[in-house]
Amino acid sequence: MILLGCPEPPVLIPSFLYLVNLLKNKGYNVFVSANPAALKLIETADSEKYYINGVGFQNIEEGIKNKIDVDKIISFVHNDAGVHYTITYKMVYNTETISLVFGRTINEEYIKELEEEGIKTYSARAFHNPTPIVVKLKKIVNNINCK
Amino acid sequence: MILLGCPEPPVLIPSFLYLVNLLKNKGYNVFVSANPAALKLIETADSEKYYINGVGFQNIEEGIKNKIDVDKIISFVHNDAGVHYTITYKMVYNTETISLVFGRTINEEYIKELEEEGIKTYSARAFHNPTPIVVKLKKIVNNINCK
Repeated sequence: MILLGCPEPPVLIPSFLYLVNLLKNKGYNVFVSANPAALKLIETADSEKYYINGVGFQNIEEGIKNKIDVDKIISFVHNDAGVHYTITYKMVYNTETISLVFGRTINEEYIKELEEEGIKTYSARAFHNPTPIVVKLKKIVNNINCK
Repeated sequence: MILLGCPEPPVLIPSFLYLVNLLKNKGYNVFVSANPAALKLIETADSEKYYINGVGFQNIEEGIKNKIDVDKIISFVHNDAGVHYTITYKMVYNTETISLVFGRTINEEYIKELEEEGIKTYSARAFHNPTPIVVKLKKIVNNINCK
């Protein structure tokens, strides 16, 4: 499952589509819990559903109440809400959770909070330029080992 | 030709991919002059090139120096630089130019400046939510009539 919060940073939607493609190419089933604004942006970007075909979507709030069966959670974090959702999802789903903390600058406090909750954290300084995020996403996907 | 400046607003890249798809589905040849950061985001979002396959790209600065043959220009404008590039391209290419002015709020000054230069201007109040832009893009594409 990919966790996606507020789409403020311009890199978020492109990076998300990149990650979906990477996971699908590796044969994983992908499910996404997203902020409604992020979901609309995804549907606009991928109007022919080349990337999101076969991907399940739910509202990020709903996903806390209605737990589905997932092996791993990957979460994009760039603000307080992202940290909060990631920790909440980890607790509700009680499964391995990986977060990618990104932004104009990296907030060390976020990394500390996430790691204290047993969430493996990667970080990338990126706001307009997606390359640092792409590099970390490749690393995350290479390191995961789903059933 | 689509003109694409700084990708600060989160709606820009999704809206751009939407427009490319719309134009390709209508059988138009699409060429893009983009800010390098925007180009990287496009390549990350469409990593399999489903949308940008067959689309030509050039740096927005290069496009001013090396004029190619285009029928129409559609330009996304959300800041001063966007206004400036749109007017410059209209002068250099001397062809019909349409601009979509968008942002958290619509800057009437931009619209006035663009229309004074004979640039047909549409506007959409949008920053996170792409729907107002999508509506206008459909209208723009329905109204154009290329050879």
